[in-house]
Parts: sequence; structure tokens; C-alpha cells
Amino acid sequence: AKKIPQTVEEEEGDILEKCKGLMSPPVTDVNVLQRRKGEMCTKMEMLIMETQADFCRALEKVDGGRFKVDRWERKEGGGGISCVMQDGKVFEKAGVNVSVVSGYLTEEAAKQMRSRGKVLKGKDGKLPFCAMGVSSVIHPKNPHIPTVHFNYRYFEIEEEDGSKQWWFGGGTDLTPIYINKGDAFHFHNTLKEACDKHHPQYYSNFKKWCDRYFYIPHRGETRGIGGIFFDDLDGPGQEEVFSFVKSCARTVVPCYIPIVNKHLKDTFTAEEKDWQQVRRGRYVEFNLVYDRGVKFGLATPGSRIESILMSLPLTARWEYMHEPAEGTLEAEMLEVLRNPKEWV
Amino acid sequence: AKKIPQTVEEEEGDILEKCKGLMSPPVTDVNVLQRRKGEMCTKMEMLIMETQADFCRALEKVDGGRFKVDRWERKEGGGGISCVMQDGKVFEKAGVNVSVVSGYLTEEAAKQMRSRGKVLKGKDGKLPFCAMGVSSVIHPKNPHIPTVHFNYRYFEIEEEDGSKQWWFGGGTDLTPIYINKGDAFHFHNTLKEACDKHHPQYYSNFKKWCDRYFYIPHRGETRGIGGIFFDDLDGPGQEEVFSFVKSCARTVVPCYIPIVNKHLKDTFTAEEKDWQQVRRGRYVEFNLVYDRGVKFGLATPGSRIESILMSLPLTARWEYMHEPAEGTLEAEMLEVLRNPKEWV
Repeated sequence: AKKIPQTVEEEEGDILEKCKGLMSPPVTDVNVLQRRKGEMCTKMEMLIMETQADFCRALEKVDGGRFKVDRWERKEGGGGISCVMQDGKVFEKAGVNVSVVSGYLTEEAAKQMRSRGKVLKGKDGKLPFCAMGVSSVIHPKNPHIPTVHFNYRYFEIEEEDGSKQWWFGGGTDLTPIYINKGDAFHFHNTLKEACDKHHPQYYSNFKKWCDRYFYIPHRGETRGIGGIFFDDLDGPGQEEVFSFVKSCARTVVPCYIPIVNKHLKDTFTAEEKDWQQVRRGRYVEFNLVYDRGVKFGLATPGSRIESILMSLPLTARWEYMHEPAEGTLEAEMLEVLRNPKEWV
Repeated sequence: AKKIPQTVEEEEGDILEKCKGLMSPPVTDVNVLQRRKGEMCTKMEMLIMETQADFCRALEKVDGGRFKVDRWERKEGGGGISCVMQDGKVFEKAGVNVSVVSGYLTEEAAKQMRSRGKVLKGKDGKLPFCAMGVSSVIHPKNPHIPTVHFNYRYFEIEEEDGSKQWWFGGGTDLTPIYINKGDAFHFHNTLKEACDKHHPQYYSNFKKWCDRYFYIPHRGETRGIGGIFFDDLDGPGQEEVFSFVKSCARTVVPCYIPIVNKHLKDTFTAEEKDWQQVRRGRYVEFNLVYDRGVKFGLATPGSRIESILMSLPLTARWEYMHEPAEGTLEAEMLEVLRNPKEWV
């Protein structure tokens, strides 16, 4: 059930040529990328840059607006490119962020990086590492268009003996304000098709992982209707996992854009907008209280706060004791969040 | 510099009579309170109930609206009374909450309860405890009226040998959207006068503690212009500390209501409202990420989430890369949050 990456040529095509279509030059110098074009760090950096560009262009086409592009550097090494469109015609806030960071980790920090907490041995206790990823959250204005989030990342760490530990993580998930079964099926089915090309268990395993991860314990609700989520993926082989991650990343546009287009002209009431704002509040609660990436970012001195908190909606609302009446569409949504469903 | 509580009669006046003016009957049965009227738990429960009633009445008088009163029970013991006024004429969201909780703690939990992490010895590892407090957050609509927060609490825990450990905590702090030096002076000076009656160092120590506690590290900003904050206060004697806490609690209305009345008719622009919404976002960040009470509440199974998150504003906003222009009133506010000042 596994597939080998399509062609070697596609992977190692001319870097300079590829860079022309990006939102910004990559974080790593193009000459360095060209020189190391066979290495996984280069291949992943190109993939995340391309994913950012493809998604931003697709969103700009729908909205008519333009992304603001910020390049930033991290004084300890590396940096990122944040693309944000705020208060557009269709999107309230759309952020697509790339970061490529390298440096040295302590053994303690290295252990915390992995959710399985594997112990790694560094030279004099220090481990050279490189971490990169693309992440995005899109909050539309219209409550009939769902919020989407995705994140694909790669981590590499060198041990004392020169051997490299590496793993991938990521996922794509949808947060609708109202349930639309057609949208839910399209979203999950597109992800399932991408997963099935690589392993028959991937979709089912990563769908469950997603429901578990995007859960708000104090509300007893999931954040949305899920999708896929995985972390610490370090086998069967590096090329195989990269190929899977590439399939996932290339699925972002076909997962989401058709849903946006379908509801572009849906009308909505003030009450529906209100419910959207209450759901936005829950989104904030998850991101600030539980999201591992946000928690790690906030606790890391020198991290770029504006890029980390770019995922927060432009507006949110907290109503005391808000509970939709039985039989309403709002209650239907809550029921799904309280009891995650199978969509395909 | 210390004062003895005013009169014993005042403390132990008829409980039934006092209960008539409260927002709801106390959490503990009135007959039990009457029987144990000399005990600190009873005196503190009456104080927090009275503080809730006094503050709610004063806010209702300003707003013209009415508080919704919810009595709730905790199945493990105790309960609370939540008073909330939402979308009033003056107040966007006003919450005043009392909770009185009792039961048993493990030694580990007991240790975590105290910020100084004192080790306590329980009978078979279990320690009977009782915890109570009043807490409130008021978010007004007009950006020229500041948000206020206060919390006064008491904790009692019984060790194996029957000896009781007890301590008080609390504080009152102000979060303006724009700096008004007169308001800042009035607020801090009212607190200072209350503190000075009990100890010459209280105001200065607890003002510093407040600035340290209400700090948002990832923003490099305090939440507001502070006030006082203290925790683990267990000396010189129980009556003396209670008397101090009583002075603080009775200072809530004179600290805040005159500021509300002063700005009741202030006009404001859409831009000022926007800045208020951005500041509300920071309030949410502090409360969800750093506030010890919220973190403890969210992590405690069976706690009443709606009462814990009552402190969140009705509406909030996150703008990417929001930075006020130099020389504006918004920049003046930020400057104070980045470099806390002395106001009296």
C-alpha cells in the first residue's frame, strides 16, 4: 500500500526556478539550498515554501485581497515568513506562516521536543538541530464557511556520534460553525484519499489522533470536526514519510477551497454571526490553553509572538452560560463536537 | 501600625439578619453559620457574601440593569453563587462570584495549593480543607471606563494532629484602556489608605507583587496599572489578617464606583472602541495562559467552567502586528504597561 516518491527529478528540480513562484525568497540562502538540494532539510523547506505560496494564491483568488508578507529573522539562527491577510472581503483573518529554525538544544529540551520523550545523547550535552514547518489558520467572515487549520513540520537532530534523528508531524482539520455533511464528507474524503496512497491505516489512525488532540477538556468538546493529525512519524523510511507529508500538504487547497467557493454567496443572520463569535471564543480557549505549538512558542524566549498568535481570530465572544436551544442548528453542531463522528 | 478588629459585636451580629441583604442565601446552611458564628470560616463566608452584595448593588445602581443570580452546588461539597450582568447599559459584562468549597486534599495537592509549597501532614495522607473566596471582573462598554478585578480568599487545612493551617490571599487591580492620572491616583490611593491602617509596608509590598503577578511575559506588558495583590498571608495573627482583608474588601466600591461615575458620559470614537477590543484580547491572553486561579480551575474536574471563565470579556479582538503610532494616547498606555509606575 506504500508508494515511492513520484520522480527524483521533480524533487531536485532547479531551486532558483522554483523560488520565483514563492511569497518570498526562502529562509535559507538560495545558494545553500542549491548546494544541498539532495538533503531532506532542503526538500522540506522547498515543500513548505511551495505549500505557503499555493495556499496564499488560492485564497487571494477567492478573496480579491492580497497577503501582507513579513520576513523575520531569529537572532539565534533561522527565521520565517509570515503571510497575513486581515479584514478581507471573504476572510476575517488568514495567516500562513513558514518558519525554519536551527541551533543547539540541551538534552532536556531535546527530550521535550518529542512527544514520546526519547532520550538523545549530545556532544557536551548540546545537540545541533533544525526544525521547520508551515502552519496556517483561516477565519472567514461568513459563518457558513468553516475555519481551517493545517501544519506540516520536520525536525532533525544530530547526536554525539553524528547519527541523525528525524521525524515529521502535521495535520489538517476543519472547524465549521454549522454542520454541513457534504462539506464534512468532502474534507475528510480528500484527506482519506491522500492517506490511502501511503498506508491503509493512516487515515483511520490519524483521524482518531486528530479528535483526541483538538479536544477542549474543560468544555467537553472537540475544537471542530477534525481531519488528520500525526506526530513523531519516523518510519518506515525518510523518503516514504516525506512523500506522505507532501501528499498531505498538496491536499490543503483541494480540501478547503471548494468548500469556500460553495458557500461564498450564502446569506447569514445576526444570530448566526453571534454563534460564530462564540465558537471563535472556544477556538481561542483551545489555542491559548492546550495547543502544544502555542504553549511552546509562548514559553520560548525570542520567539515571534505575532506569528504564533496569528492563529487567533480577529474577533471573539464569551457569553455567560451560552447553551443553544434543543433542536436548533447550533445544538446540532454542539452534539457533533461532544461526540465526534465518522464522516467517510 | 496594626489595628484590632473594630468590635466583636459587629463580627458576630445576627447572621439571619445579615443574610437578608445578600444576593442569595449563603452557600453554607444559615443554621450551621449561626451555630459556628465565631469561627473564621463563618466570618469569611459572611464577608465575601456581603462584598458580593455591596458591589452588585452599587453596579446595578450605576447601570440600571439587574444581576442574574445562579446558585450552584459542587457534588464533592460546597458550591457557589455567581452573579452576572451581561450587555447592560454601562457594563458589557460584569461578574461577581462567590465560592465555598470543602472536602479532602491529598498531601501533593495541599502542597500545590500554597505558592510557598509548604509540606503538610495528613491523616492517612488526606487533609480536610475548606477554601472560599469572592472574585469579580467588570468590563464596561465605554473605553474610558477601566476594567476592574478583585479577589479575596481564605484557605484552611487541618493536619493529622488536628492543628489548622490557614492563610488569606487577594487583591484589587485596574485595567484602563487609556491612562487617566486622576483615576490611577484615586484607585491606588484608596487602596493605600486601606493598607496603611494595618501595616506601613503593605501597600508598597503588595503593589509590587501585583505588578509582578499581572504580567504577560510573551508581550512584555502588565495586564493593567495594578493595585495590590498578596497571597499566603498567615501572620501576624488570624484576626489581624482578617481585619486587613475586610478593609480591602470594603474598599472595592469606593475604589471603583467613583471612576465609573466620572466617565459615564464620556464620548468615544470607533478607533477608541477598537483599541479597547485589542486590550480585551490581552486580558484574555493573561487569564487563559497565566492566571493561577483559572489554570487551577480548568485543571480541576467538576469545577464550574462558566464561573471560572466569567472573567473573559464579552468581546475581544486580535489584530496582527498592532502597534500604536508614537505620540498617541494608545502609545502612552502601552508605555505604562511596559514600565509600571508609582501612582501615589
